[in-house]
Amino acid sequence: MTAELNETHDPALRSWVTSADQPDCDFPIQNLPFGTFSTAGRREARIGVAIGNKILDLQQAGLVDTDDMNALMAFEPQKMTALRALISQGLAQSSARQPDWEAALVDQSAATLHVPCRIGDYTDFYTSVHHATTVGKQFRPDNPLLPNYKWVPIGYHGRASSIIPSGQAFKRPHGQTRPPGTAAPVLGPSMRLDYELELGWFMGQGNALGQPVNMADAERHIFGVALFNDWSARDIQGWEYQPLGPFLSKNFASTISPWMVTMEALAPFRTAFSRPEGDPEPLAYLDARRNREAGAFSITLEVLLQTERMRSESMPEVRLSKTNMASAAYWTPAQLVAHHTVNGCNLRPGDLLGSGTLSGPTSSEAGSLMELTAGGKVPIALPNGEKRSFLEDNDTLILRGWCEAPGAVRIGLGEARGTVVG
Amino acid sequence: MTAELNETHDPALRSWVTSADQPDCDFPIQNLPFGTFSTAGRREARIGVAIGNKILDLQQAGLVDTDDMNALMAFEPQKMTALRALISQGLAQSSARQPDWEAALVDQSAATLHVPCRIGDYTDFYTSVHHATTVGKQFRPDNPLLPNYKWVPIGYHGRASSIIPSGQAFKRPHGQTRPPGTAAPVLGPSMRLDYELELGWFMGQGNALGQPVNMADAERHIFGVALFNDWSARDIQGWEYQPLGPFLSKNFASTISPWMVTMEALAPFRTAFSRPEGDPEPLAYLDARRNREAGAFSITLEVLLQTERMRSESMPEVRLSKTNMASAAYWTPAQLVAHHTVNGCNLRPGDLLGSGTLSGPTSSEAGSLMELTAGGKVPIALPNGEKRSFLEDNDTLILRGWCEAPGAVRIGLGEARGTVVG
Repeated sequence: MTAELNETHDPALRSWVTSADQPDCDFPIQNLPFGTFSTAGRREARIGVAIGNKILDLQQAGLVDTDDMNALMAFEPQKMTALRALISQGLAQSSARQPDWEAALVDQSAATLHVPCRIGDYTDFYTSVHHATTVGKQFRPDNPLLPNYKWVPIGYHGRASSIIPSGQAFKRPHGQTRPPGTAAPVLGPSMRLDYELELGWFMGQGNALGQPVNMADAERHIFGVALFNDWSARDIQGWEYQPLGPFLSKNFASTISPWMVTMEALAPFRTAFSRPEGDPEPLAYLDARRNREAGAFSITLEVLLQTERMRSESMPEVRLSKTNMASAAYWTPAQLVAHHTVNGCNLRPGDLLGSGTLSGPTSSEAGSLMELTAGGKVPIALPNGEKRSFLEDNDTLILRGWCEAPGAVRIGLGEARGTVVG
Repeated sequence: MTAELNETHDPALRSWVTSADQPDCDFPIQNLPFGTFSTAGRREARIGVAIGNKILDLQQAGLVDTDDMNALMAFEPQKMTALRALISQGLAQSSARQPDWEAALVDQSAATLHVPCRIGDYTDFYTSVHHATTVGKQFRPDNPLLPNYKWVPIGYHGRASSIIPSGQAFKRPHGQTRPPGTAAPVLGPSMRLDYELELGWFMGQGNALGQPVNMADAERHIFGVALFNDWSARDIQGWEYQPLGPFLSKNFASTISPWMVTMEALAPFRTAFSRPEGDPEPLAYLDARRNREAGAFSITLEVLLQTERMRSESMPEVRLSKTNMASAAYWTPAQLVAHHTVNGCNLRPGDLLGSGTLSGPTSSEAGSLMELTAGGKVPIALPNGEKRSFLEDNDTLILRGWCEAPGAVRIGLGEARGTVVG
């Protein structure tokens, strides 16, 4: 084990919650992600940690004295480390806590899982150079990757109010589009509805206005990560996005998975981070030896689709693509924080930083339909004979993610699932 | 009086708070704007209404049972109308409430005025066609006004966390810029720091996700208006803004005035709204007879500057420009709400819609230095011999606004004041 791994990462550790030891369980005792939930018997949202197919109610277990997830996220990292150690010890086999804590367990299937915290501001980045290049070609054939891309972690502000939890359906957005060859735009339902495979980094401790966070401290301000689907209406986007960026093409809904996997849980899955030969070095405020050596994370990501007909035929979902954050992202989470705050911008506990669409280097690793179908020109053929250029009503899209590494127990991010309705 | 004017607008109405009757007072009894404040003796923020140079503490006066401004903003408009009538009656000369309410008055000069509510999401629009054209010429000489401008109320999401109250200083932002003729960008303080003269429309009642607000209902969802300065670092903006829009060039600070002037207070200052001859008619979802007849508001706006040297010489601030919302804006507040929600996006009480820089039709009415100085090429000469292309350290910028109309008592928006420090 390296210095930053501790007893909570021990691969020999097992939980008395037996479902946590099932193969391919996303939530073994080495994970312990945080979220908020409620139950039919008690409607107020409260803080929980996923373990196997259960949730440990932290207040009920006597571990915290608040039901405010954001308050917990504002903790010093050392305090979170201590809390994680307590949770790990109490859930471990042979813990004396088992009799007490059994009463603090809730079945995940019996709980409503919420957006995991109050998201004050949501920023979306554009960290995949592969996505930026492929999409850039469609919007600007002669100028796909703009001159700032390899210098500036491009980002923009998104909408916090319309971020919805996994499992919630949303309505196909209407909006202005201008059909090719016409002078005036028309209002109508989006005909080019897409998803975007993203990771969402939640901020922990904030920074004061006017106080940048440097690279050495940046990760201490990140609480954890979840799966994030930034649904996008490409036809609305194409007409509205100049000169100030995407707006109604994005803010009708975004889906977040319910569990925040902490930076500490991600520690065994760190990887080196390097730029392609010949690319410029990042400016000093975006560079650090530690970031080059271990600033990226090996998180496998996949996108699955289930159409209404597939459901009626009891067909399982079909995978549209699979990639890994480490090969998709041109900027690390630490660089996003350092860049976001270099001008003094204040981040608050619970703020969300989207990675942007994580498309890997090959075409089968693309994180959106826009890329997989060449802008809708080459539809995907599904096993049951259906085709998809863009999403149709009652399509369900599922993002999944997990981490694996030699000598470490596999952990998962759960899923972000959403269905578009007409 | 027209149908929508009521006894609270009566120009003969006078208050027992005598400072409210001074000529040019922003807060006569016909205004009654809402905000939040605290005092040295009681640090918790609470809800107040400005009257003359005083604040009426609404909870102390027995008018509300909350100190949560956002909860008040979520009220049905009829309930707000009833509350306004009670406040007006109680503050009117000869009211029996005077003895009780005198104890609920606080001197504005003894209070700390806060950002008036919790701003969940902040959207910035781009409603001045004059601003869009002038700025567009600088960024895109061959293509100043993009083809979507007269169809789409262009908007984008901004940063809520860094919105600060009037009177608070902020640090000059650092960021990446690429000096002309160089290949690599550099990090440093912005050398082209600018202001933007805006109005900020606060949302009252929200709408549910997936439920658009139509033009007929749109204004019922607006609580009121304040002055808003969207400080902008033009050099950072020029390098970062493509393809996803402005980000760090804006999110280091924005200044809001403390008082929200309600839609009801603005009623006497409504004006007809028409587009220039030959411009396309708006699409149906952005059009309504009522909007054409009375959807705009005559709000006079001015920008004043006081430099450090002017302060040391006891010189008053100097006016940089003056305009009126009615001649500057190409889209009405109702149209902003209808457009923002047409895709189902949910607005929440307290959300802020910035108008974008309100530049009027003539060059002296420009709402930013970028326009007044032709992108910094033609500095402004100040009366004491100083010059300004962009803002220098310790410059204080003040926005003011007020409404006048025949047969109505003048009301003011107060001021949004901010100072940049190095």
